[in-house]
Formats: sequence, structure tokens, C-alpha cells
Amino acid sequence: MLQVWALEGIGEVRSGDDLRAIVGDALASSHEAVADGDILVVTSKIVSKAEGRFVIADDREEAITRETVRVVASRTSPSGHTTRIVENRLGIVSAAAGVDASNTPEGTVLLLPDDPDASARALAAALRERFGVRVGVLISDTLGRAWRDGQTDHAIGAGGVHVFEDLRGQVDAQGRPLVVTLPCVADELCAAADLVKGKATGLPVAVVRGRADLVGELDLPGARSIVRTVERDMFRLGADEAYAEGYAAGLAAR
Amino acid sequence: MLQVWALEGIGEVRSGDDLRAIVGDALASSHEAVADGDILVVTSKIVSKAEGRFVIADDREEAITRETVRVVASRTSPSGHTTRIVENRLGIVSAAAGVDASNTPEGTVLLLPDDPDASARALAAALRERFGVRVGVLISDTLGRAWRDGQTDHAIGAGGVHVFEDLRGQVDAQGRPLVVTLPCVADELCAAADLVKGKATGLPVAVVRGRADLVGELDLPGARSIVRTVERDMFRLGADEAYAEGYAAGLAAR
Repeated sequence: MLQVWALEGIGEVRSGDDLRAIVGDALASSHEAVADGDILVVTSKIVSKAEGRFVIADDREEAITRETVRVVASRTSPSGHTTRIVENRLGIVSAAAGVDASNTPEGTVLLLPDDPDASARALAAALRERFGVRVGVLISDTLGRAWRDGQTDHAIGAGGVHVFEDLRGQVDAQGRPLVVTLPCVADELCAAADLVKGKATGLPVAVVRGRADLVGELDLPGARSIVRTVERDMFRLGADEAYAEGYAAGLAAR
Repeated sequence: MLQVWALEGIGEVRSGDDLRAIVGDALASSHEAVADGDILVVTSKIVSKAEGRFVIADDREEAITRETVRVVASRTSPSGHTTRIVENRLGIVSAAAGVDASNTPEGTVLLLPDDPDASARALAAALRERFGVRVGVLISDTLGRAWRDGQTDHAIGAGGVHVFEDLRGQVDAQGRPLVVTLPCVADELCAAADLVKGKATGLPVAVVRGRADLVGELDLPGARSIVRTVERDMFRLGADEAYAEGYAAGLAAR
């Protein structure tokens, strides 16, 4: 049985706040005592706020540009709005480079945490010490998908949680190797957590209980290891962008 | 509180089996009585098996070719293995067109259900009638992602479940419209379910309790509505493929 619930009592997080104390106090006052193997899924927004990752920006688009390492694809709608799919400095491909303009003070936007894996590990370490139980921490962000509409939550930081469940080498009932073999459990945990957190309701932390087997040492690989390397990425450019590059090269090859 | 558990007692499903009876009997004998608003997440494999979607194929690659509507991208590794990202007849972009060679009789592979939304609705209708409660049904498949390693479970069929939670029009605490606004809750529910089902353990159905608000009429849009239309798809071709098309066009434009 997997149980997932949102942690009550976390108010507005401000720059410089001690997230370890805030989350720890919310856990301490929860009607459900934290237990060995619990996994906390923390919305990246409150991590960014505590880390003071606000930047002055009247224009979210300008902030996205500054956070962009590489434009993967862009498209302008008939109404004139341009959607940009970009890679940010964490290697994450998304529609807005993690720049968040919701629930931020007027005239500011919020960037992603500087190093979400380090933030997750620090929070996990502090909670393990305070409560004497081995918990894991994931930091989640909301991402779109290449071929599917809508968004789902994904892991951008991980501390003390196995991000993949490695089934390679396991066999099916007929003794043949399983072909699909690397479930990204960190992303699945973040997706499950989003079902109880809600985007507008001020519940930025969820607890997932029931997969203690995924909790481990703090030096486990972080969520950065989920990001596909460019050598393995077949979609490093949008189709239109790659076509245009090819066309120019073809013309120049005369 | 969200609760997710796997349904016990579903054995090997064979061609022609009545999935409504099998899942219904498993629900009836569960220690937990089915309740209004429960969402069942059913692995597509057992739907396909019941529907007899086996085809004779010594070669999974040949079966993938037959199921492919359109090759999106392909890449051959130094060891000679070719990975193909293809669109299947359901519009789903994946690495194997839904062709499954695990846990199938020797010399056969399994195709996806013919019409997963119809299968989900039929199962939901039967369970609603049998138990007198309003349940929803999702049919899940395991899919890779463009820019992230590993796989997560996604919804390919939906009966009586809202596949999106429409937050468009909602505002944040400062009264500004929420920008990220279309959580694909169907995919998040399937991801949550995968955390209790496991791939090799013979637990193909999970029950999710706690989001009864997402359960509705049987004529709600199906999972087909999650698939991005080609007009909105910026990644209709892999980067190498689009580049090659562009290059050829550039050469020809001389």
C-alpha cells in the first residue's frame, strides 16, 4: 500500500527562510509521525524561495532568455505568442527554463534552485538527524512532454532516494529478459505527490509512504542523472530547427 | 490522503478471457471493498491478452515495423542495435510501437489493445453496474521520454476519468493567472500505480483512492485526447532526420 498526503502548516516561504526547520516543524506537528523510509516530495518553488532565487524582471521572457543555455525549439502562434523549448543550466529541457512567475512578488520571477540535488541532500540529512529516521527527499518541478499535452511533475533534485528502479537482468515468467527495464521511480513519485499537492492550494510538500526500498544513502546519484546526455538525445533540436540547419548546410554544400 | 494498492489474485490472462469478470472478481474478493470514486489502473498488457492481440512473430522488430504509422527517429548504436522512435496507430510516440515481447508465449508478441479508450469505458461500465459505485478506469503503458532516461507509466486509455485537471482561469495568491495550468492527472495516476504494480511481479491492476473528484461520466474524453496533435508537435521528427530532410531540400534548391 502506497500512501501519499500533503503536509499541512507550511505557510509562505520567504528568502532566507530555513527550509530544514520549516519542513521539519511541519513534520513534527503532523498528525502522522514521520517514519523510516518516508519520501518527501518538495515543490521546487519553496526551495527556490528559501534560497532567495528571486530576480527582478518585469518580463518573464527576458528572465527565460537569461536562464537558457540552449534553445531547443521555438514556435510562434498566429496570435504572436512564442513558445520556446529550452535547455537550462541543469540540463533540463522545458518550456520556460524553470522560470516561475506565479506566486512571486510583483516585478519578480523565481529561478530554479541553484543545485537541486544538493538542496535535496541537505534537507534529507537535516531531517534524518532531527528525527532519527532515514527519509528521502525529492524536489519536483512541473514539466511538459514532447508528444503529450499537459504537464506532470518530475524530479529535479534527489537526496537519499534511488531515482531509477533497476530491473535490468530480471526475467519475465518465461525466463526471458525484461526489455523495458529502467522505471524512473523518482519521476513517478513526484507525479504521485502532485495528485495531493495541487498547484494553487499552498501545499508544497507531500509525504509518500510505502516504498522504503527506494530510500538509501545520501550519496546516491541525484536527479541530474535522469537527464539524458546529448549523445543519447535524438531530440536535441526541434524538427523545424533541425530542418532549417540542414537546409542551410545543403545550400552551402554547392 | 491518496492510497494506492495493487489488486491481488489476478492470474495469467489468456486470449478470450472476460476481463470484466476477472477484474470484478478480484475486486469482490479484495479485503478492501471497492468504493465510489476509486480509480483502477490496468496494465495494457492484460487488456491486450484478453482481447487476443497476440501475433505470430519470431522477430519483435518485424512486428514493430507493422505497427508503425510513422518513424519519428532512429539511431543505430556502435554495437549495431537500432532504436526506433515511432508513432503507432493510436498516435502514441514510443520506442517500440507498443509491441510487447515480455511475458508472452514463445514465438508471439503482443500488440496494444485495439481501442484502449473503448476498453477502459467498457470495463468501467461493467464494474459500475456490478458494484453499484462509480469507478474510473485507466489503461496504462510504459513509455520513454524525449529528454529523460528511463520510463514511466502513462495513460493510453481512459473510461470515466478526467485525463486533465483544468486549472486554466485559476489565479495564484497574488491574483495572477496560473501559467502552468493543465496537469495531466491521468498520466500522474498511472505513474503512481506503477509504484505498487511492479513489472515482473504479476500485479497488473492497481486501485487509486482519494481523487474521486476526477471520476465522471463514461463519455468524458479518453486518453487519446492527451496525444498532442501534429500541428502542435515541435518534435515530429528526430533532429538528425529533420536535418537530413532539410539538407536534401537545400541541395535540391540549387
